[in-house]
Amino acid sequence: MAKILLIICDGLSDRPVSELGGKTPLEAAFKPNLDMLALSGITGTMHTVDIGIRPGSDTAHLSIFGYDIPKYYTGRGPFEAAGLGMDIKKGDIAFRGNFATVNENLMVVDRRAGRIEKTQNLIKSLEKIKIPDVKIFIRKGLGHRFALTLRGKNLDGRISDTDPHETHKKVLLSKPLIENIKTKKTAKVVNNFTRQSFMILKNEPVANCILLRGAGTLRYIPSFTEKYNLKAACIAGGGLYKGIAKILGMDIIEVKGATGKPDTDVKTKINTALQLFEKYDFVFVHIKACDSLAEDGNFITKKAFIEKIDQALKPLTKRHDILTVVTADHTTSSKLKKHTADPVPVLITGEDIHTDHVTKFEERAVLTGGLGHIRGLNLMPIIIDLIGKAPLYGA
Amino acid sequence: MAKILLIICDGLSDRPVSELGGKTPLEAAFKPNLDMLALSGITGTMHTVDIGIRPGSDTAHLSIFGYDIPKYYTGRGPFEAAGLGMDIKKGDIAFRGNFATVNENLMVVDRRAGRIEKTQNLIKSLEKIKIPDVKIFIRKGLGHRFALTLRGKNLDGRISDTDPHETHKKVLLSKPLIENIKTKKTAKVVNNFTRQSFMILKNEPVANCILLRGAGTLRYIPSFTEKYNLKAACIAGGGLYKGIAKILGMDIIEVKGATGKPDTDVKTKINTALQLFEKYDFVFVHIKACDSLAEDGNFITKKAFIEKIDQALKPLTKRHDILTVVTADHTTSSKLKKHTADPVPVLITGEDIHTDHVTKFEERAVLTGGLGHIRGLNLMPIIIDLIGKAPLYGA
Repeated sequence: MAKILLIICDGLSDRPVSELGGKTPLEAAFKPNLDMLALSGITGTMHTVDIGIRPGSDTAHLSIFGYDIPKYYTGRGPFEAAGLGMDIKKGDIAFRGNFATVNENLMVVDRRAGRIEKTQNLIKSLEKIKIPDVKIFIRKGLGHRFALTLRGKNLDGRISDTDPHETHKKVLLSKPLIENIKTKKTAKVVNNFTRQSFMILKNEPVANCILLRGAGTLRYIPSFTEKYNLKAACIAGGGLYKGIAKILGMDIIEVKGATGKPDTDVKTKINTALQLFEKYDFVFVHIKACDSLAEDGNFITKKAFIEKIDQALKPLTKRHDILTVVTADHTTSSKLKKHTADPVPVLITGEDIHTDHVTKFEERAVLTGGLGHIRGLNLMPIIIDLIGKAPLYGA
Repeated sequence: MAKILLIICDGLSDRPVSELGGKTPLEAAFKPNLDMLALSGITGTMHTVDIGIRPGSDTAHLSIFGYDIPKYYTGRGPFEAAGLGMDIKKGDIAFRGNFATVNENLMVVDRRAGRIEKTQNLIKSLEKIKIPDVKIFIRKGLGHRFALTLRGKNLDGRISDTDPHETHKKVLLSKPLIENIKTKKTAKVVNNFTRQSFMILKNEPVANCILLRGAGTLRYIPSFTEKYNLKAACIAGGGLYKGIAKILGMDIIEVKGATGKPDTDVKTKINTALQLFEKYDFVFVHIKACDSLAEDGNFITKKAFIEKIDQALKPLTKRHDILTVVTADHTTSSKLKKHTADPVPVLITGEDIHTDHVTKFEERAVLTGGLGHIRGLNLMPIIIDLIGKAPLYGA
């Protein structure tokens, strides 16, 4: 049975850019290896969540891995928290948190508290907060960020953020998004925690407040191995992607030089992935920078980064024993500087698979590819069939 | 109103075969008539059950005929039993059965009892088995095969096989797949029947046991005529296909030389179909051998058999009065020797219909055809519309 390498280039696809002669960064890039993989395999275009739905990175990845969003996803918190190494259990409510600066009226002055780095002691003092019947866990993230997890009976994460998401607005009270006893209790706990944290932090010079967002309950999620009978590993720089992989039961493999930034060592990530096939059936490699560069409007560097990815993929053009899948989680428009709902290109190549006539791995070239216009949820069943492991439906 | 000829070539499509210069058997075959039909009509690619789903022949055919599988299908048994001429009624539970050889510990030595042919007397003795409140019907099949039908109140076919599907394993007890009073009762009846049959057969030299599989309850299925207001006939060699057609209320037309094997007389099948249009609106012709040849890994003979089909279809290139539809129920990979989830090509040709630019009836050529990438359930509504019989949805 072929091993599977799934490479997700975050925000790889884009819209045409007039400064690139009406091409997208992917179309404008010199990418002989990606094109070779497209030529030897089958291509298509994929709506990772659904047609016209502008996906977050979290919902897009879960869909690509075959997990139906309405069933499994309630918010980004648990995935971020898991990405920071927290041990999230079914029923836990997790949040993304920022240290922030507020004035005496609780009006936000700086959502990121001057991008403060040293928050270890602040977090230690927050850990002393007590709320009856609820266990509280806090974990430092990058810079001013942290994750908060609440564990206890009768909690429900369908509550609103305390983060107003803008300066010159007051810290918000969390409210139930759906009214029930559990959401009311959870909002109360969150507001209690925020009040106590403010009492603790109020004399800090910069980080005198916390803002919480992305509340989510971790629901029961079958592991990737349970679902597909594949032993899976993840190589990623960004915390969210590690968090998603961890929650799905993949092993997280740390690779030196995997930064989640344009300076990341894509070559080492790919070469490590290839070595992992001695122990794993499925390796997920996440490559972040296309997305961040497009969100900064930097289409020139995005194009250059795609060329860097392409060089790193060269060994794959000779590995016909592996089923290689390359795609993106969503389109990120360098002009709009945000995610869009435009579908993403996808290619699958490997020995003895169904192929097509497409010779370029580009947004427009793959529109007539053999995979057609699929949904993210279709990808894993197609992969499982191509490696000959799909169950027969009927007889 | 045009008459409809639906030709399903079982397992017609394939994956590229390196020994055929990277072509599929269909692409490698000389098939001027199939290409002429594609040229004059409209083509597309079809996921008979759904994207990434590897269909059995039964679920694929039902989907192509427009019957939603989760609603109508519980197992292959009823369709096989009907194919042997049994009169299956709504609520009946039917099984596929084998005579087998077991040792004194009920360990299977030969799942096919030496492919025994003369089973008439064995079946007569099994017909004497009595189980309170349950009527038992048994019908001989080819060689060592038979079908068993149970009729009675409170039966439910969602139970497991007694057939271990491998030698050196013990005959299994049937168990409910879903726990309820009916499945428990049905499993009990099946285990009782198996026990009694063993008492009857235990002194037989070869066929000293029976193995049951593919249990299914026949649910209410609207007939093809009821659903589409078309008088329909079926020409097929294989029992399963006749069984499906019979359950859908089609008339089964026996054609001399229709064997379901590579020696089958495709020409006579097609010519008979054309004559049937005096009495019928819709004729379904099933051609089996591509599937069996690919399951034997015999891509060369599969290609030759496709050329034989092509020759038999010549008369159709001149019959513009008929709506001719050619497709497959699933792909069968000659390399993997099994069904795959790859979509199948489909063509529709006839007078005054919506057409496209595709000139070849091949897996890759039809990917950009005018029908697009459809599901099996889409085909009948498209056909009904093309003959001008679709009801208006709205006003």
